[in-house]
Amino acid sequence: MKNTLSLKKAVVLLSGGLDSATVLAYAVSKGYVCHALSFDYGQRHKSELKAARKVAKALGATEHVVVKVDLKKFGGSALTSDTPVPKSRSNKAIGVGIPVTYVPARNTVFLSLALAFAESIVARDIFIGVNALDYSGYPDCRPEYIRAFQKVANLATKAGVEGTRFRIHTPLIKMTKADIIRLGTKLGVDYSITHSCYDPAPDGTPCGMCDSCILRKKGFREAGISEIR
Amino acid sequence: MKNTLSLKKAVVLLSGGLDSATVLAYAVSKGYVCHALSFDYGQRHKSELKAARKVAKALGATEHVVVKVDLKKFGGSALTSDTPVPKSRSNKAIGVGIPVTYVPARNTVFLSLALAFAESIVARDIFIGVNALDYSGYPDCRPEYIRAFQKVANLATKAGVEGTRFRIHTPLIKMTKADIIRLGTKLGVDYSITHSCYDPAPDGTPCGMCDSCILRKKGFREAGISEIR
Repeated sequence: MKNTLSLKKAVVLLSGGLDSATVLAYAVSKGYVCHALSFDYGQRHKSELKAARKVAKALGATEHVVVKVDLKKFGGSALTSDTPVPKSRSNKAIGVGIPVTYVPARNTVFLSLALAFAESIVARDIFIGVNALDYSGYPDCRPEYIRAFQKVANLATKAGVEGTRFRIHTPLIKMTKADIIRLGTKLGVDYSITHSCYDPAPDGTPCGMCDSCILRKKGFREAGISEIR
Repeated sequence: MKNTLSLKKAVVLLSGGLDSATVLAYAVSKGYVCHALSFDYGQRHKSELKAARKVAKALGATEHVVVKVDLKKFGGSALTSDTPVPKSRSNKAIGVGIPVTYVPARNTVFLSLALAFAESIVARDIFIGVNALDYSGYPDCRPEYIRAFQKVANLATKAGVEGTRFRIHTPLIKMTKADIIRLGTKLGVDYSITHSCYDPAPDGTPCGMCDSCILRKKGFREAGISEIR
């Protein structure tokens, strides 16, 4: 039984942040052979990708593929343009409305590419670290969105037509940031190598004031866990 | 009324082939301001992209954006690898099963990027030249797939959440190749600048023997129209 499980391949979307690192640790703990997938999508900084490489290695992904896809060509987001990233927003303000850091259709683009990768390597399981609780108000993090995409995955593909059931796993979808950090800590994630900030200094130091930094700090505080072990 | 119509923006997926050229002509004829979108996805030859540029210009697209997305990283198709393209298959054989020219999840990747583009330019209409009749057996050309993707589009996006209804237009979905050629000819498409071949010579000359060349020739024959005007 253990052998069967250990042969299960999965594609794990890995941004280099706290959530996707936890997802990778979770998928590995469930016996999946994990193919980590990251994107060089024209984000303002490359600290994310550096972190993703470290995380993939530290948590035992069998490979880490980085695909270039130039979302910058479309613009429309503070994460891929020169629009300032909002700072020092209160916890109440975060999660109300959709912020300028929203990248148009980003998770759909990422999941489509994960699907292409999964079908190519004959994997049927795709893991993504979306979160519908302590999230930033992005529509493509909601359970109904994920269900709709899963339906597309099965209709879109040769594998789906031939009987494979693709499954989009969202183990964090109902967790608070503190829950996520507790789970990852139990699974041995070293969060000091992850990167969450939307607007780091050129050397990668987090700004400490964007929504992502604020949610991260709040999560560690509520989990009662120190960020640096 | 005419002014309102002429302000309607659309994203039109343009491969440089016969079908997407017809779709672009159709969308223009319906009064859409058309933003053509093509992909440099690691296809074996660049004749498609050259044709797409000519077609976009000839048919009056307001802009033509080419986005790089490296599907070659995943492999799994004769169109993005060294697997030979099948030649001289009979009309009966074409459309039975899914051929090696299938690119994993290609239309899902392309439609996702079209959605990202549409949301960025505040367009709600996306045109794609899929065809469920004289097609090559690809699952992501079926009406049920398109419906499922449209649902994803509306759940995935800020625009969808805020009340925009994205629409995926597939004007060719129930047409034969001959119907498509008749429609395009009526709309003034110069098919001599389009490119259909999966495996052209280095100078772009079509092989004449792949499924795509065979379907194209059959279409012109059945439409009673000469390919070169």
